[in-house]
Amino acid sequence: MEYLFSDRVQTLKPSAIREILKSATAPGMISLSVGNPAPEAFPATEIGEISSQIFRQRPIDALQYNVTEGYPPLRRTLTEYMKERHGAGREFDDLLITSGAQQVMDLATKSLCNAGDVVICEAPSFIGSLNSFRSYQVRLRGVPMESDGIDLTELERALREEPKAKFIYTIPNFQNPSGITMSAEKRRGVYELAKRFGVLILEDNPYGDLRFAGEEIAPIKALDEDGLVIYAGSFSKVISPGMRVGYTLAPKPIVQKMVVCKQGEDVHTNIWSQLICEEFLTKYDFAAHLERIRGVYREKAKLLLQLAERYLAPDITWEPIEGGLFLWCRLPDDIDMVDFCRKAMERKVCVVPGNAFLVDETQPCQSFRINYTAPADEQLTKGIELLGQLAKELRTK
Amino acid sequence: MEYLFSDRVQTLKPSAIREILKSATAPGMISLSVGNPAPEAFPATEIGEISSQIFRQRPIDALQYNVTEGYPPLRRTLTEYMKERHGAGREFDDLLITSGAQQVMDLATKSLCNAGDVVICEAPSFIGSLNSFRSYQVRLRGVPMESDGIDLTELERALREEPKAKFIYTIPNFQNPSGITMSAEKRRGVYELAKRFGVLILEDNPYGDLRFAGEEIAPIKALDEDGLVIYAGSFSKVISPGMRVGYTLAPKPIVQKMVVCKQGEDVHTNIWSQLICEEFLTKYDFAAHLERIRGVYREKAKLLLQLAERYLAPDITWEPIEGGLFLWCRLPDDIDMVDFCRKAMERKVCVVPGNAFLVDETQPCQSFRINYTAPADEQLTKGIELLGQLAKELRTK
Repeated sequence: MEYLFSDRVQTLKPSAIREILKSATAPGMISLSVGNPAPEAFPATEIGEISSQIFRQRPIDALQYNVTEGYPPLRRTLTEYMKERHGAGREFDDLLITSGAQQVMDLATKSLCNAGDVVICEAPSFIGSLNSFRSYQVRLRGVPMESDGIDLTELERALREEPKAKFIYTIPNFQNPSGITMSAEKRRGVYELAKRFGVLILEDNPYGDLRFAGEEIAPIKALDEDGLVIYAGSFSKVISPGMRVGYTLAPKPIVQKMVVCKQGEDVHTNIWSQLICEEFLTKYDFAAHLERIRGVYREKAKLLLQLAERYLAPDITWEPIEGGLFLWCRLPDDIDMVDFCRKAMERKVCVVPGNAFLVDETQPCQSFRINYTAPADEQLTKGIELLGQLAKELRTK
Repeated sequence: MEYLFSDRVQTLKPSAIREILKSATAPGMISLSVGNPAPEAFPATEIGEISSQIFRQRPIDALQYNVTEGYPPLRRTLTEYMKERHGAGREFDDLLITSGAQQVMDLATKSLCNAGDVVICEAPSFIGSLNSFRSYQVRLRGVPMESDGIDLTELERALREEPKAKFIYTIPNFQNPSGITMSAEKRRGVYELAKRFGVLILEDNPYGDLRFAGEEIAPIKALDEDGLVIYAGSFSKVISPGMRVGYTLAPKPIVQKMVVCKQGEDVHTNIWSQLICEEFLTKYDFAAHLERIRGVYREKAKLLLQLAERYLAPDITWEPIEGGLFLWCRLPDDIDMVDFCRKAMERKVCVVPGNAFLVDETQPCQSFRINYTAPADEQLTKGIELLGQLAKELRTK
C-alpha cells in the first residue's frame, strides 16, 4: 500500500545531517555530537533513595493516573522556585508540567500557530525546537547572533517585515549551539520590541543553572509585566534528561490551551519522575546539588579549553563559554565544513555540522558544535586532538 | 494582552461535560467517572524491586537520554510478544514506544491527516482519542455500534460517502465507553472494507488483556497482510497508567513519520518506565500477573453486576461485559440523561454523561458510563445504590 502522509510531515524530511549522524553510535566512535549532560552530574544516589521510599510508602501515587496539569505539589514548588530564584511569575501566570521542555515548544506552537504563521528564531538555534515549529507548518525567520545575543536591529527588521510573526524563540543562556549568553540590556531590548510589535516571546532556559563562570542574568520572564513571555524550564540538565520532566510558566489563557493539547498528546507526564523532582527539590539541598554540578562542568570546561588551545588554535576559533554544554567552533574559510565533519566521522570523531542549526541548511556555514560534557576526559582529549590534526591536514592540502 | 490562538485550538472548547466533571474530585464524592484501573491490580512490589535493582546496578541507564524509537530491548521484547501472543506483526511492520497509547492517536493523526480530512470512529467512542483527532482539525464521522461491534452496513456507507477518510478508529475489545467487543467476523469485515476503500485502521487495544469471561478474539492487526493497520498497545491497564508507556505496531513508513513527530514532541518516552516494563515482561511471570489481575476484575465485575441487578434494574439497563473497565448504562426515555448525571453529582456520585462520547455532543443520548474498577467495594456499592434511588425518584415524578 502507498501511504499518503499529511502535508506537515511531508516537509519533515530526514536531513543530510541526520544521515551523517547516523553512524554516531558506531563502535569505537568518539561522540562529541550529542546534547547529553555529564552522567556524573546526575544525583543518582538521591533519586534511588527517593524512589525506594516512594515504593515503600506510597507506590500507588507513583503508578496511578494523575492530572494533566502536573503533580500539584510540584507545580506549587516550581511556582515558588521561579519567584524566589528568578523573580519570575505574576498573578496572570500559571505553571504546567510537561514531558521535557521539548513539549513546551510543541504545545506553544500547537496552541498559537496556524500554517503559514512565522516564528522568529536566533540563527543558529536548537534543531529540536526548529523541527518542532516546522511540524506545524510555520515559516522560520532567522535573526543573526552577536557575541552578546540576538542582533536587535535585525530583530526589529524581522518584526517589521513579518506581520504574521507569532513569537520570538530565544535561548538566552549558553545558547544551543553557539554557547552565547544574551546580555541584560538585550533581554530588555527583546522584551520591548516584542511588546511594541504585539508578539510573544518563547524563552527556553535549559542551561541557565549550568553557569560555572561570570554573573547570572535574570530571565526575560522576570521582566514580563504584560503577559508576553512563555518560559520553558527543564530538569534535564540539572536532575536527569531520561526522566523527561520540564515545565512552562506562562500567561493563564495560554497554559489553558496547552493543557487541552497535552491531554490529547500524552494525558500527563510520567508521575514517578514528577514525585522524584518534587522530593528532590523540597527534601534535599538543591542549591548544594547545583553547586556540585557546576563544579563538574567547570572542571570539564577547563580541560576542554586547554585542549582547544593546544590542538585547535589557531586554525579553529571558538565562542567563549561561561556555562552550558557546547563549544561552537569555526573553521578557517579554506576548509569545507561539511567535508571536515564527514572526514572527522571517518576518523571516529562525531561533531554536529553547524548548518544543522540554521533555518536553511543550504546556507554557507563554517561552524560546528562540540559537546564536552558527555564524553569521558580521555575520549574528549582524543577527540579534540583528532579534530585539530584533521584541520591541520586539510589546510596544508 | 489579547492572545490569538491557532484555529485548531479555537475549536477545542471546554465542553459542558467537563464543567459537570469539574466537581468530580470534591470531598466526599464517589467517583464512578474516571477511567482508572484498580490500584490493587498494579504490580507495585515487583516494580519497587526492579526499580531498586536498576538504581543499584545501572542508574545512568535510567537517567540519561535515550533514542526516540524507544529502549531497544523493550522494542524487541514487544515485537516478539505481539507475534507470539497475538499473531500480529509482519516484515513490513515496526514497533515504536510511545508516552502512553494516547500518543499513538496523536502521532498517527499528525502523520496522516490534513485539516478537513475525515476519521471514521465508532459512536460512541473514547473522548480522549476523539479530542486528539479534533486537535488536527479532522472531521469525525461516527458509525453506530451493535452488540457485536461497529455496524458494517453503516461503515460501508460512511466509507462511500467520505472520500477524505484517512482511517477507521476502533477499540475492538471492551470498547470505551460501551463495553462492546467486536466479533471475529466483524473484525474480518472491517479489515476487508478498509482494504477495499484504501483506508487505514487505527486499532486501539488498551483493555484486551482484561478479559475475565468468554473467549479471546485475535486483533485486527493479526489479519493485516496489506499494511493497513496501526495497532496501539498500552501498559496502562496491565502494569501502571502513571508510567505512561504505550506502543504502536504499524507499517514502517508510518512509524518513520511518527518517530519524526515524536522527536519534536517529547524526544523520547521516560526511560525508567521503559526499563521497568522490559524487566517485568522478561524476568517476571507476566502471564501469571495477567491471570491475577483478571481475577481482581472478575470479582469486581461480579459485585458490580449484583449491585446493578439489585439497584438499577429494571429502570436502568446495561450492555453485558466480559472485560474492561466500564459499564454502559441506559436510562428509560422519560428521564433526562444530563439532568440525571447532574443530580447524581449533587448527591455525590459522579458518572460520565454518554453524550461526552459522541461526535456531536448535542445529539440525543440516554446512556451514561460507570467505571467499576477504581472505587473500593463500599464506594461502588454506595454509588450504585444512590444511582438506583435517583432513577426511581425521577421516574415517579
